[in-house]
Amino acid sequence: MPGTIHGVGLGPGAQDLMSVRTDRLVRGARHIAYFRKAGRPGQARRIVEGMLRHDAIEIAMEYPVTTEIPLSDPRYNESLSAFYADCTERLAALAQAGEDVVVLCEGDPFFYGSFMHLHSRLTGVVPVRIVPGISGMAGAWTASGAPITWGDDVLTVLMATLPEEVLVRRIRDTDALVVMKIGRNLPKLRRAVAAAGREAEAWLVEHAAMPEQKVTPLREADSVTPYFSILLIHGQGRRP
Amino acid sequence: MPGTIHGVGLGPGAQDLMSVRTDRLVRGARHIAYFRKAGRPGQARRIVEGMLRHDAIEIAMEYPVTTEIPLSDPRYNESLSAFYADCTERLAALAQAGEDVVVLCEGDPFFYGSFMHLHSRLTGVVPVRIVPGISGMAGAWTASGAPITWGDDVLTVLMATLPEEVLVRRIRDTDALVVMKIGRNLPKLRRAVAAAGREAEAWLVEHAAMPEQKVTPLREADSVTPYFSILLIHGQGRRP
Repeated sequence: MPGTIHGVGLGPGAQDLMSVRTDRLVRGARHIAYFRKAGRPGQARRIVEGMLRHDAIEIAMEYPVTTEIPLSDPRYNESLSAFYADCTERLAALAQAGEDVVVLCEGDPFFYGSFMHLHSRLTGVVPVRIVPGISGMAGAWTASGAPITWGDDVLTVLMATLPEEVLVRRIRDTDALVVMKIGRNLPKLRRAVAAAGREAEAWLVEHAAMPEQKVTPLREADSVTPYFSILLIHGQGRRP
Repeated sequence: MPGTIHGVGLGPGAQDLMSVRTDRLVRGARHIAYFRKAGRPGQARRIVEGMLRHDAIEIAMEYPVTTEIPLSDPRYNESLSAFYADCTERLAALAQAGEDVVVLCEGDPFFYGSFMHLHSRLTGVVPVRIVPGISGMAGAWTASGAPITWGDDVLTVLMATLPEEVLVRRIRDTDALVVMKIGRNLPKLRRAVAAAGREAEAWLVEHAAMPEQKVTPLREADSVTPYFSILLIHGQGRRP
């Protein structure tokens, strides 16, 4: 009997915002895998600090590249593709030997997550199960203290990696907005929000649901922000 | 000392997809409130079946109207507005008497939720805290077995209550799509998806994360679907 690879959503960062199902899987796991940037502890691993079995075997999957090569360079894709194939082989071998593996995913596994790249490669090879999680954006709008959408507001979710003119058009054309993957794209995103005429409505949320949580009007935000920051514009739709 | 009103996200429907924080609040609550349609048990209440304290006091807040009056009729807003004011008074009185109240919210409280209408009225009156939850849409895409978004896919979230021509334009102009509040809007939504040329990519998810979960290609779906059904089109963006 092969083991199962569980891709579990950790939620936005607080341990008690994990689902009961994820909490049980994390605490019980013999094999626990997570992505991280080489030389860093890794955000997913940090979230589960103190929860793992004393005999848990950790599998740190270290990205060969994050922002050192531009996305447009073919070497970026080649390098990541080989990396994901390698991780897949490692996890599949464990499952084929009858071991379950819990793979930690920040936020929700199927929402712009890294585990998706293993999921597509593992499917049909060994059993894979997904546990959804509270998304980082839900952590962000909760931190902001206001609902993100009302009535029939349209919500658009954008990555700040998109070209500036695409950002401008999309930001202009929505009621509520979430922008993720900000980091070094912040100056471009700021220009786009301003060009769309929506600077006064925009909030930057850093480290949502964690002790260092910070919510700032975009206009007053610093020029440097972590990759996991989230920009919000709240919808103002119909309400009785 | 006033008590606190906790708006807690229950997630998509399975008990163990509640967060650990919500699970603790629900199990410990002396006063537990939830919305429901008059004469129905209510989906939120159903999710927590078997979890409540034996001495829990239940506050069923029954909508005076759901679909009997069209949204556009001024009586719809008047009736709901009076209802929310009444619920607010009831909960605020408990908090002012020093009691905590846990208000059950399907999915995430700040994402198209009913509790938002109490939150805006309670804020500044008594302490209110929100616990985010796994959204119904995350339950739906997990049920579908495939990630909703890749790379820099644009995700659009729409309510099926929008006018048909708005739906067509928005469905045509996005990578990934989520449509909620379907119910009796299904025929209109179907026409809009077809007019946008995306019928072959669309999936209908009913009762996500629950035993009766059902995932159907839109083309093969029945013509009747529950209000809480969710339509998905998966993004196909960049992936190494």
